[in-house]
Amino acid sequence: MKATAKAHTNIALIKYWGKRNDALILPTNSSLSLTLDGFYTKTSVHFKEELNEDVFELDQEIVTGVAYERVTSYLDLIRSFARTDLHAEVQSTNAVPTAAGFASSASGFAALAAASTKALDLDVTDTDLSRLTRQGSGSACRSIYGGFVEWKEGTRDDGLDSYAVPIAPQEHWDVRVAAVVLTAREKDISSRVGMKRTVDTSVFYQGWLDSVPHDLSEIKDGIQVKDFEKVGSIAEANCLKMHATTLGATPPFTYWHDTTMAVMQTVQGLRADGIPAYFTIDAGPNVKVLYLPEHEEKVQQTLSSTPGVTDVILSRAGSGISYV
Amino acid sequence: MKATAKAHTNIALIKYWGKRNDALILPTNSSLSLTLDGFYTKTSVHFKEELNEDVFELDQEIVTGVAYERVTSYLDLIRSFARTDLHAEVQSTNAVPTAAGFASSASGFAALAAASTKALDLDVTDTDLSRLTRQGSGSACRSIYGGFVEWKEGTRDDGLDSYAVPIAPQEHWDVRVAAVVLTAREKDISSRVGMKRTVDTSVFYQGWLDSVPHDLSEIKDGIQVKDFEKVGSIAEANCLKMHATTLGATPPFTYWHDTTMAVMQTVQGLRADGIPAYFTIDAGPNVKVLYLPEHEEKVQQTLSSTPGVTDVILSRAGSGISYV
Repeated sequence: MKATAKAHTNIALIKYWGKRNDALILPTNSSLSLTLDGFYTKTSVHFKEELNEDVFELDQEIVTGVAYERVTSYLDLIRSFARTDLHAEVQSTNAVPTAAGFASSASGFAALAAASTKALDLDVTDTDLSRLTRQGSGSACRSIYGGFVEWKEGTRDDGLDSYAVPIAPQEHWDVRVAAVVLTAREKDISSRVGMKRTVDTSVFYQGWLDSVPHDLSEIKDGIQVKDFEKVGSIAEANCLKMHATTLGATPPFTYWHDTTMAVMQTVQGLRADGIPAYFTIDAGPNVKVLYLPEHEEKVQQTLSSTPGVTDVILSRAGSGISYV
Repeated sequence: MKATAKAHTNIALIKYWGKRNDALILPTNSSLSLTLDGFYTKTSVHFKEELNEDVFELDQEIVTGVAYERVTSYLDLIRSFARTDLHAEVQSTNAVPTAAGFASSASGFAALAAASTKALDLDVTDTDLSRLTRQGSGSACRSIYGGFVEWKEGTRDDGLDSYAVPIAPQEHWDVRVAAVVLTAREKDISSRVGMKRTVDTSVFYQGWLDSVPHDLSEIKDGIQVKDFEKVGSIAEANCLKMHATTLGATPPFTYWHDTTMAVMQTVQGLRADGIPAYFTIDAGPNVKVLYLPEHEEKVQQTLSSTPGVTDVILSRAGSGISYV
């Protein structure tokens, strides 16, 4: 009745940006990510007869409020799936520096789904696990696998065909990611709210949707043949398109800060100097930079010396779910 | 055979962003601008029997090369219209600081069209003059009139119905504009090239076109009733949409710098402090800020103290073509 799982976070190269079903967390488009070794969540779930409610400890502190509600709602889903009434003690450790601008929900829900299904001894395939994880946090469903991973949007209303599939394991290609941390500022609009406003009001949303299938098919070709320029430039263009959609929303908004733009300019400057490096940005101001191992020192130095950058955290490609 | 005209530049609140006919300079969408008092070109045109070719002097210096070619090609158009072979001496003075990021082509071609038609004693209406000016530089056709001006896209292939019409004269409403000058940097992509790449490749171009008619009709309502919040927010949103289209082009590009974004944040900060101020940005990094006279001091101070800002030049609404 007890299990521990470890899951890494992932960074989307083709963005998940919009839901077609809020309750089941079904996306409007397929997405593709790279699982990252540097950032993970380790979670133990222990179902116990004597508990009257779930208990959630994060980094050795008892969690209450909204974060607790999200975990316990998710455990309800697992319980209904497993036909049990047992409550659980959940202990998580996050090795995802919040400041790095990674949503810890990706590694968090992947680890929670894996540990809780294992603790209940459920017979789930990786596909089942990905589908289950998706219902906790959409992008988390990609963290089941290591390396490059595609989340298939699916077409079914019940979501049975919307899950992640591995595209290439982390051993396939040593691509690195630098997480560029910027001077902290309040995030005005959550990714959930921004995504919804964009889907509902952006004059560019259809253009975004129309362009994703081509990006996805091209980037998969690029990954297979390890064409870094192709993969990087598609990822960067896809990120720019995602962020452009927010500028066409009513009211318009952006996740970018002046410092975000300064880092984008630094990356373009690296390329002008012959260093292949490409940026991607999620629903927040921080920037992730893709590069190859031979350029690590130059990339780290150049990013670190950009005004407004407080930290640069490097990561390799990481593995999928593991059980401890 | 000699005449002198003065024309002010204008700033688009609903952007001109794409041509449906390159030769005749016919736009893909109607646009709307405010003519600005602070920036103008004064041009004398003197047609003379003894000249074998045109001469163009700008700010007391003889001009050759591309700028000369543009002027002499334009005079060819006027000559064919007037059925004359005479060459001209053209003397222009520009009170449009290039650093302010205003295209001097708007006031330049409006003054050139007015002075040359007047010098040849051609019987042209303001509408004729606007159409003629349009063929020198698209946005220049709006500088024929003062205050708020609409450039109607028209539907005819010959462009006869594509010209500017006055919406409200400068006396109607004392709206001010601060031109925010940023640390100079090379402009990577000209507005002509950027516009063309966007029309040809942006996945967001249709979304832009679809959204302009509503923006235009709403902003005209706002101008009539002097609803500053309405006019400002539509102008800002329209500018954001125009710039978003460049992020969806292949390859993607942007006219924004980190300092551009810093000024955008400053303007949003002014609004958070209760000062109604709105930005608009043309195909370059500099920012124009719309505000009301009672907030001039606060707006100027706040903009001037934004990092990266080298100058803030204030202007009132200006008048249309005048003859000296």
